[in-house]
Amino acid sequence: MSSRTKVGLIGLGAMGRGAASNLLAKGYDVVGCDVSEAALEWLRTQGGTTVASPAELALQVRIVVCFVVNAQQTEAVLFGDEGMVGHLPPGTVFIACSTMDPSYVRGLAARLIQHSIALVDAPVTGGAVGAVAGTLTIMGSGTQEAFDEARPVLATFGARVHHLGQAGAGAQMKVLNQLLCGVHLAAAGEALALARRQGLPLDLTLEILSSGAAGSWMLADRGPRMIACDFDHITSAVDIFVKDLSLVLDATREARFPAALAHAAYLAFIETSARGLGALDDSAITTHYERSGDRD
Amino acid sequence: MSSRTKVGLIGLGAMGRGAASNLLAKGYDVVGCDVSEAALEWLRTQGGTTVASPAELALQVRIVVCFVVNAQQTEAVLFGDEGMVGHLPPGTVFIACSTMDPSYVRGLAARLIQHSIALVDAPVTGGAVGAVAGTLTIMGSGTQEAFDEARPVLATFGARVHHLGQAGAGAQMKVLNQLLCGVHLAAAGEALALARRQGLPLDLTLEILSSGAAGSWMLADRGPRMIACDFDHITSAVDIFVKDLSLVLDATREARFPAALAHAAYLAFIETSARGLGALDDSAITTHYERSGDRD
Repeated sequence: MSSRTKVGLIGLGAMGRGAASNLLAKGYDVVGCDVSEAALEWLRTQGGTTVASPAELALQVRIVVCFVVNAQQTEAVLFGDEGMVGHLPPGTVFIACSTMDPSYVRGLAARLIQHSIALVDAPVTGGAVGAVAGTLTIMGSGTQEAFDEARPVLATFGARVHHLGQAGAGAQMKVLNQLLCGVHLAAAGEALALARRQGLPLDLTLEILSSGAAGSWMLADRGPRMIACDFDHITSAVDIFVKDLSLVLDATREARFPAALAHAAYLAFIETSARGLGALDDSAITTHYERSGDRD
Repeated sequence: MSSRTKVGLIGLGAMGRGAASNLLAKGYDVVGCDVSEAALEWLRTQGGTTVASPAELALQVRIVVCFVVNAQQTEAVLFGDEGMVGHLPPGTVFIACSTMDPSYVRGLAARLIQHSIALVDAPVTGGAVGAVAGTLTIMGSGTQEAFDEARPVLATFGARVHHLGQAGAGAQMKVLNQLLCGVHLAAAGEALALARRQGLPLDLTLEILSSGAAGSWMLADRGPRMIACDFDHITSAVDIFVKDLSLVLDATREARFPAALAHAAYLAFIETSARGLGALDDSAITTHYERSGDRD
């Protein structure tokens, strides 16, 4: 009988695959579930096993990592027709890595505990590159007992695994993270579009602005693509920030908190999406500030 | 007779003093002018000489560095009752390092050329620390001939001396720099005040947000003071950003450019100033987002 711990992994997109590779490399058995047969086939070639539904997965594991896109998919995984709840054994730890509304997460923790399932709310930052490299920052939360069980699993793909408090605190931190990412991205787009309008040398502008007090991670990372108008090489889409900044707006409304910068950034992203550019790389936010025809 | 080049230096505040130290250390004779007798006395102890007015300075030098606070003071230095214009010899290079409206700077260049004075528009970034260390980034502009004369002088206190085009381009770049600085500072205040409202552990929040895609120079530099509510240690005041973001708003209006982020940041700063906090360190912007009484 194997002494390896079996981990369920739901959602084998870019992030989930990175997590799967690290779990397998570090001695875990991985049982995967995804709507895509190609994704399941990929996992089998890596040495994992697969199941046809979350309900089936629930019969095999006591710890689950969920890397689906959003709260709607998480809800389906747990409470849908072929969902896990009702099949998972008491004491199971469910680790949700998606970016979701903190108030939804808090409610989810309360609903799951009625089925004796512990929610660990653990959104991540660092991208697909970080998932593969095992260098993600993980904004974890949940009961101490559940988090102690989740930590070694999270440490396979996270370099910095933080425990921030009760379930929902991780989601709150991710919301703050996305607030700053969204504002910095829109601000970079605003500054570089203004530089273009004014006829300043763009490469030199980016070099100067990045080198001092005006610098941000987003400016340095997305700036070159903004200058090159290279919006087809997609690391993250405009519509991802429409979604993530919507979560920011919801969270600030709930807190009765006047987040003017976040709202200004949200408007820039949704206006860019409304112009039909939602599927482009998020650096396309800079086109929001250009005059009609400037790109032609 | 000395072979050392004589440089006029107007404005012996923190920035001007740093420039003076570097000019003297690197072989220039410095003739200083300031409204403060204490500042003049300081310069004499460093080995410089002093004069009583810009008009008097004009009789001694053919190159001038001006580190006054704003356009109003620059105007007085040049065209005031005891101003330089009318006394400066033809061919003088006037290096203006203040943060000023680009359209004012362009007009100033045109007015000075009628007196055969060449304007080098050279705002800086890097703070008083950079002025002393000689590590400023200098956003220079002006004619090639004038800039060639100014460059060795600027290189005494600037590590990166850029020539961006005709006079006004330096001011435009500084406006872009301040746009990003102001937005990033207000965004940091927004995110950290929201973290406080939500009861997240603030030191850990700052560590997480600074470590990844949400990071900015301003977050890392001002974040600790925002968390500690330490607004009396002043590196730059709230009212400086009211002024600098006003220049941003003017520049975007002139360009017919919809800079929503810059406007949102400006409102946060002017509301903070309106609450009587304009003289505090600019990290006090985070109090704008706190509920009345939260600081008590």
